[in-house]
Amino acid sequence: MDDAVLREVIAPNQSKIVLMVLDGLGGLPHPETRRTELETADIPHLDRLAAESACGLTIPVAPGVTPGSGPGHLALFGYDPVRYNIGRGALEAVGIEFPLEPSDVAARGNFCTVDESGVITDRRAGRIPTERCVELCTLLREIDLPGAVALIEPVREHRFVLVLRGEGLSDDLAPLGTDPQHEGLRPVPVEARSAEAEPTARLFNEWIVKANALIKDKYPANAVLVRGFAKYPDLPSMQSRFGLNPAAIAIYPMYRGLAKLAGMQILTTGGTFEDEIATLREHWHEFDFFFVHYKKTDAAGEDGDFQRKVHALQEFDAHLPKVLDLKPDVLMIAGDHSTPAVMAAHSWHPVPFLLHAKLTRADQTDAFNEPSCQKGGLGTFPAREALQLALAHAGRFTKYGA
Amino acid sequence: MDDAVLREVIAPNQSKIVLMVLDGLGGLPHPETRRTELETADIPHLDRLAAESACGLTIPVAPGVTPGSGPGHLALFGYDPVRYNIGRGALEAVGIEFPLEPSDVAARGNFCTVDESGVITDRRAGRIPTERCVELCTLLREIDLPGAVALIEPVREHRFVLVLRGEGLSDDLAPLGTDPQHEGLRPVPVEARSAEAEPTARLFNEWIVKANALIKDKYPANAVLVRGFAKYPDLPSMQSRFGLNPAAIAIYPMYRGLAKLAGMQILTTGGTFEDEIATLREHWHEFDFFFVHYKKTDAAGEDGDFQRKVHALQEFDAHLPKVLDLKPDVLMIAGDHSTPAVMAAHSWHPVPFLLHAKLTRADQTDAFNEPSCQKGGLGTFPAREALQLALAHAGRFTKYGA
Repeated sequence: MDDAVLREVIAPNQSKIVLMVLDGLGGLPHPETRRTELETADIPHLDRLAAESACGLTIPVAPGVTPGSGPGHLALFGYDPVRYNIGRGALEAVGIEFPLEPSDVAARGNFCTVDESGVITDRRAGRIPTERCVELCTLLREIDLPGAVALIEPVREHRFVLVLRGEGLSDDLAPLGTDPQHEGLRPVPVEARSAEAEPTARLFNEWIVKANALIKDKYPANAVLVRGFAKYPDLPSMQSRFGLNPAAIAIYPMYRGLAKLAGMQILTTGGTFEDEIATLREHWHEFDFFFVHYKKTDAAGEDGDFQRKVHALQEFDAHLPKVLDLKPDVLMIAGDHSTPAVMAAHSWHPVPFLLHAKLTRADQTDAFNEPSCQKGGLGTFPAREALQLALAHAGRFTKYGA
Repeated sequence: MDDAVLREVIAPNQSKIVLMVLDGLGGLPHPETRRTELETADIPHLDRLAAESACGLTIPVAPGVTPGSGPGHLALFGYDPVRYNIGRGALEAVGIEFPLEPSDVAARGNFCTVDESGVITDRRAGRIPTERCVELCTLLREIDLPGAVALIEPVREHRFVLVLRGEGLSDDLAPLGTDPQHEGLRPVPVEARSAEAEPTARLFNEWIVKANALIKDKYPANAVLVRGFAKYPDLPSMQSRFGLNPAAIAIYPMYRGLAKLAGMQILTTGGTFEDEIATLREHWHEFDFFFVHYKKTDAAGEDGDFQRKVHALQEFDAHLPKVLDLKPDVLMIAGDHSTPAVMAAHSWHPVPFLLHAKLTRADQTDAFNEPSCQKGGLGTFPAREALQLALAHAGRFTKYGA
């Protein structure tokens, strides 16, 4: 929605909105049964809710475009994911809750394996254990640079975050960085896309030379690849845009980081979905918007495990009554993108969506799945419009124009 | 889709995409049977394909807008037809494969009939035979202009192309040109829309005075009307935008011209649809995108001949298995616009569309016609999004954002 329209209609009240995101929710039919994960799962609470709700399918970014987690979530938080395109380095830093400062430039790092001639033989260094990554990062912290500080944090397996902190740094660097994207090639130097960014490119290149020298005997993690240079993205908060007092409940750091970018308060929670629901109930009176993230659907989809995704959906469904008991004014059940088990990857297919509120117009859906939502009253619509529908149903929009 | 998103996600591969355009595909119900041309036709192959495909309806330009062939096709080639609006003169020049130079200004010309007082009595001069048009154009080539050359090419019947070639010409001229659009009125002078275009307007007006003097005794073609002034449109090619190596198979010059604008290689073919399919099969290994144009549906629709349009659909259907045999990774069956026989004209009605590929999400369509496609999983969507859906299904898009 046009920002000018939004500013004119926003009218906060005391209503409560819950956005439940089942990561990678959408699917494709199993080749044998011709039924999707949602059609296969026994999800009585979701089906009943669908019958009482307005349903539809969301397009995360644009028709045909497969989103990463960043754009997929930002759209559901009410941001245009193209206008607010977040660089990989910043997303990775945000994902480990690294306190990025506005002048920092963050990059995503990989440990990789190179042969004696410097050619990459494994871009992920055989996915070394996280403990090994921690050790290597400690070693890399020794590196000194002229006029800047290099901060290194391990992420998981072969992945780390590299942050340059100093004066006048620029993130106008070629985003693929030193990673040639294919094995059998040599790393390339970091390249500035403008004269202004040249000193920053030199600093990154100097750091890389020193890092490779330090770990050259640490096979299989005997070199680094660095890419996705980005400063901290400056998003207007959900408070200022939508007049909400929002909180996030998520187990994985990446989703907490994304929620924080949008200005959400991050609530401490345990390691299970049951813990997340308990956290929601505990903080129910403190906030008016809750984002609850459910990861298992995506993880199973990415692994190509159809049955595990079906079970993940059923587990979600079993816990749903505890959310309904809270009687939110608006409840959205959504996905950041599809992750069909038959593809074992994120996909572009529109994602089932449901909005439950007092004033939704009934449609003819009586089940929560892809073909049913395709016939839903909300139609197939951009995911970034979901929050404005929620705000409307929560009575948080006044009339536009006289 | 935003060009920045496109640049980020494009990832060419070896897949093959076929776009078959049935010109004027969409229709309206026959007043007696209440069935459209597609519903009336016996098209078993299209119906079976629809059952295995994602179906929908395309909106060529905007809801309610009836497109000409130019915008209708450019949208299907993945271009926003409003942003890339091609002037009629350039389209006509492109349609006869006239080698327009970047500084040329092209216009569409009509021979018309005027009475002794200069009032138009027939805007098309009784559709004189093409041979007569050729003779008259030869005569008009005698005209000299100060500081510019006027190039004239016959098109068909009363239509010709006029191209001014010279320094500093502008196409910022009132697009209706000298044509008052109705009989019983006099031609009007060419009008500049900016000071910069005034010399060009004067040149066109001088040419028109001289042309009318030359043919004043050639009743019924005793005057000219000139309109649609336009320079050669500078479209980014499908190669650069989409990473495709595209080819076009079309019998009529207009469609070959449009395909060439988008950077397609134009393949030589015969005069029948059977020839076109043979050409497709012959060049199958040389290109990764094929546009195949089928004209008969539109011609019958324009003539208001419902039964002939039904037969044209059946003829297309009969040849379809030879395309399916090639096993394209993505096959689109589309139309550039509707041409309902009951209107005997192009119309604004959304156009049946089908996309067949491995990873399409099944929908509940089991026939290829207007009411069936309206229930399809792709919904009613802008035609310019069709190609990005095809690219996604062909695996030619990477993930957007992390």
